[in-house]
Amino acid sequence: MSAEPRNRQQTLALRKQLIGSSCKLFFPEDPVKIIQAKGQYIYDENGNQYLDCINNVAHVGHCHPEVIKAAHQQNLLLNTNSRYLHDNLVDYAQRLSKTLPEKLCTFYFLNSGSEANDLALRLARQYTKHKDVIVIDHAYHGHLTSLIDISPYKFRNLDGQKEWVHVAPLPDTYRGLYRENHKDPATAYANEVKKIIDKAHQESRKFAALIVESLPSVAGQIIPPSGYFQKAAEHIHKAGGVFIADEIQVGFGRIGKHFWAFQLQGEDFIPDIVTMGKPIGNGHPVACVATTKEIAEAFSATGVEYFNTFGGNPVSCAIGLAVLDIIEKEELQTHALHVGSFFMELLKHQKAKHPLIGDIRGIGLFIGVDLVQDQEKRSPATKEAEYITTRFKEEFIILSTDGPGRNVLKFKPPLCFNTKDAELVVGKLDMILTELEKRKT
Amino acid sequence: MSAEPRNRQQTLALRKQLIGSSCKLFFPEDPVKIIQAKGQYIYDENGNQYLDCINNVAHVGHCHPEVIKAAHQQNLLLNTNSRYLHDNLVDYAQRLSKTLPEKLCTFYFLNSGSEANDLALRLARQYTKHKDVIVIDHAYHGHLTSLIDISPYKFRNLDGQKEWVHVAPLPDTYRGLYRENHKDPATAYANEVKKIIDKAHQESRKFAALIVESLPSVAGQIIPPSGYFQKAAEHIHKAGGVFIADEIQVGFGRIGKHFWAFQLQGEDFIPDIVTMGKPIGNGHPVACVATTKEIAEAFSATGVEYFNTFGGNPVSCAIGLAVLDIIEKEELQTHALHVGSFFMELLKHQKAKHPLIGDIRGIGLFIGVDLVQDQEKRSPATKEAEYITTRFKEEFIILSTDGPGRNVLKFKPPLCFNTKDAELVVGKLDMILTELEKRKT
Repeated sequence: MSAEPRNRQQTLALRKQLIGSSCKLFFPEDPVKIIQAKGQYIYDENGNQYLDCINNVAHVGHCHPEVIKAAHQQNLLLNTNSRYLHDNLVDYAQRLSKTLPEKLCTFYFLNSGSEANDLALRLARQYTKHKDVIVIDHAYHGHLTSLIDISPYKFRNLDGQKEWVHVAPLPDTYRGLYRENHKDPATAYANEVKKIIDKAHQESRKFAALIVESLPSVAGQIIPPSGYFQKAAEHIHKAGGVFIADEIQVGFGRIGKHFWAFQLQGEDFIPDIVTMGKPIGNGHPVACVATTKEIAEAFSATGVEYFNTFGGNPVSCAIGLAVLDIIEKEELQTHALHVGSFFMELLKHQKAKHPLIGDIRGIGLFIGVDLVQDQEKRSPATKEAEYITTRFKEEFIILSTDGPGRNVLKFKPPLCFNTKDAELVVGKLDMILTELEKRKT
Repeated sequence: MSAEPRNRQQTLALRKQLIGSSCKLFFPEDPVKIIQAKGQYIYDENGNQYLDCINNVAHVGHCHPEVIKAAHQQNLLLNTNSRYLHDNLVDYAQRLSKTLPEKLCTFYFLNSGSEANDLALRLARQYTKHKDVIVIDHAYHGHLTSLIDISPYKFRNLDGQKEWVHVAPLPDTYRGLYRENHKDPATAYANEVKKIIDKAHQESRKFAALIVESLPSVAGQIIPPSGYFQKAAEHIHKAGGVFIADEIQVGFGRIGKHFWAFQLQGEDFIPDIVTMGKPIGNGHPVACVATTKEIAEAFSATGVEYFNTFGGNPVSCAIGLAVLDIIEKEELQTHALHVGSFFMELLKHQKAKHPLIGDIRGIGLFIGVDLVQDQEKRSPATKEAEYITTRFKEEFIILSTDGPGRNVLKFKPPLCFNTKDAELVVGKLDMILTELEKRKT
C-alpha cells in the first residue's frame, strides 16, 4: 500500500498510533515483524527464519497449499450466508460428526471460539432453564462480555466474580489441591465440584453448566486426571446442568492419541456440548458448536432464530473440510503422537539435568515445561521463564509461557513440527538453562 | 465431497438432520440451493439466475475478482495473529481512519459485527464505569448473550428486558410516536431519550451508552430525522454515557451521500464509538470498532489484554483494503446514490398507483417499501408482504421483509446493482401488486 515497504520501527510507530493498546504484541520491548510463513516456520522482514513452537491456529502448518487452494476455489464460486442450501455446510457437519460420539449430532457454525463458547452458554441456559455456571480456576474461555464473566484469568482483573459464577479448583496434580501422591485425585477434584453445587443449592441457586477446557491451557498446560470429567459430569447432571467441553485450544488431533482431548478421559465420557475454534480453519475465522438433539431442540423451541452472518458460509466450510482432509492424508494425528513422545523423552532427560525444571507434562504436541525456583516448594520461576523465552527468540525460536505464575513454557506448534525441530528446541533449552545456572552460581 | 452432487431435497434432508433448527432458511417451505454467484446475481443448482436485492454483505458484488485476488495473494504469504507486527493491519487502520472524523482514531479488529458491538459495550462500560444502556425499540445488535440483552427484537421473545436496559422509541416518522406532521420530530424523539435518563437517575442508575443503528434496519428500514443523533448524544453525554453508532448494516458507502450513515445527521455529529461488520470484507469474517483515544486509553488502563485470535490477521486486513479500493475505483458510493435515486423515483410512481404502498423511504441503496392494509391507519400488510416476496422468488428476484410487522420490503443489494435491475424489480412489483389487487376485488 505504501510506496516503500516500512521498516519495523515505522510499522510499530503506526501501530501505537492506530491500534488500541490493549492489543498486546509478543516481545513488547522488541517486537517481531513477520511477513511470511510456511509449515512450522515464520519469517521476518529481513528473511530470518523462526521456528514457531506456539501457533496452534496454523494447525496443519502455516500457509498449507491445500487449505489455500480450497479457499480460493470456493471464493471463485460463492461466499454467502447459510440461509440458502449448500452442500459444503452439510458435508462439513457430516465429516465432523464422524469424529465425535454419536450423541453429538447437531452443529452450529460461527466465526470464533469466543462466539462458540457464548452460544454454548446460551444453549445450556435455554435447555436447563438455569443460569449458574461452574468454571475451573485460571480458565480462559474468550474475549466476549459473557466469557470474561466465566474466565477467572480475566475477571479477577476486571469486574470481579458474578454471583452466578462458581470457581472449582484446577485439577492440577503438580501444583494443585490434590497432587500426584493422592490416591484418587480425579474423585477428589470432582468432589470439589460437588461441594460447590451443594453449597449453591443451599442458597437456591441452579446450575446451567460446568464448562471445562479439555486440557486447561492458559492455566499452565494442565492434564486433568483421567476419570475427573466423568465424575464431575455426574455431579453437574444431577444438579440439572450440562457439561461443556471447550476444545478450542486442543482439538483436531493435537493430542495424538485421540482426535478430541476430552477422549483422554475414557470412552465412557461424552460431553453434552463441545466447542471448537482456533485450529479448525488453520487461521481462517471459523468455529463450531456440537451438541445433542435434545439441547438443540430446547434452543429452537423458543422460536427465536439463530443467525450468524458469516457462520457456515461455503468458504469457511470448504476450508474446514480441507483441514480435516489434510489431518487424515498427512496422518498428522499419528505424527503428533510420535513427535510428542520423542519430544517428551528428550525433555525428561533435561529434567534430570536442570533443577529449574519442576515438571514436564504433555500429550502429543501439547507440552508444558513447568519451571520452579525450588523443587520442593514448586514456587514458579517466573523471571527465569521470561528470560528463557527472550533468549529463545534470539535463537530464532518462538515460544511463550502460560500458567498463573507465567512460568510454564508452552509448546503447541503446528502439527508438522518434527523430531528435528524437537531436537533443536531441546538442545537450545539445555544451553539456555545451563547459562542461567552458571549466572546463578 | 460426495460422489455425485446431491439434489436439493437431499441437501435439505441432511441439513435438517445435522444443523440446529434455530438456523433458519429463506423460503423455508421451498428453500433455494445456491451454488454460484457473480455481482448482483446468484445461481441455483439448475443454472437459474436470481437477482439479489438483499445481500448487503456481498457489498462490492458477489465473488469480486479483486477481493478474491487480495485474499489469495495474502493467503499464500502469511495468515497469523496480530501479536506480530504487520503492515496490513496498520495500512487498513490508516485507510479506515481517513473515512472517519479525526476523533475516531483508534481501531480494534474482530471477526463479526456481533463481536464488534460486544467490544463497544465493554469499551463504553470501562470508560464510563457505568452499566446501563439505552437502545432503540426493535433494534437488533447481534446474536451474542450481551447483544440479545440490548436487542428488543430478540429479548422480547427470550429472557425479557434486563433492569440495566432501557428502550427508547424508534425515531420512525411514518408509524412512530412523532410523525411527518410533527414540527420537530428530531427534538421530540431525543426528548424521549432524556425522559428515560431522568427517570433512571431517580432510581440511581447510571448510563454507559446509547447505542443506535445509524439507519435502523430490522426495525423496518428507518431513516431517523436529521438532528436526532446530535440531540440524543447531548443527553447521553450529560448523563456520562457515550454514543455508539452501529454501522454494521449500512456503512461503507451504501447510502451514497456519505461513506457512513451517521453522517446523514450533519457534519456536527460525531459518535464516540463506531462499529462495522457485514459489508466490510465482502463476506469474509471481518469487523471493526473505531473509537477515541480517551476511550481506548480507559480500556487499556485496566492492564488487561484484549486478544482476538483471528481479528486483524493479514488476510482479513488485505480483504478489507481491497474492498475499500474497489469502492473508490468503481465509484460505488456515487453509483449507489445515482441508482438509489432512480430506484426511488420509480417506486414513487408505484406508490401513486397502488394503495398497498403506504410509504417509500430510502437513501442510496438502502430502501424500504412499507406495505399497509389501510393508508389512514397504516396497519402493516404482513400477509401481502409475504405473498409478494414469494412471488418475487418465482420471478427469480430475491428480496425479504423487515419491520416488527414484517411488512416492509427491504432493498439492500450489492452496490453494483444498476438502473436496469431497478427497472426490472419495479416492473415486477407493479405486476405483483396488480395481481394482488385483482384478487382482492
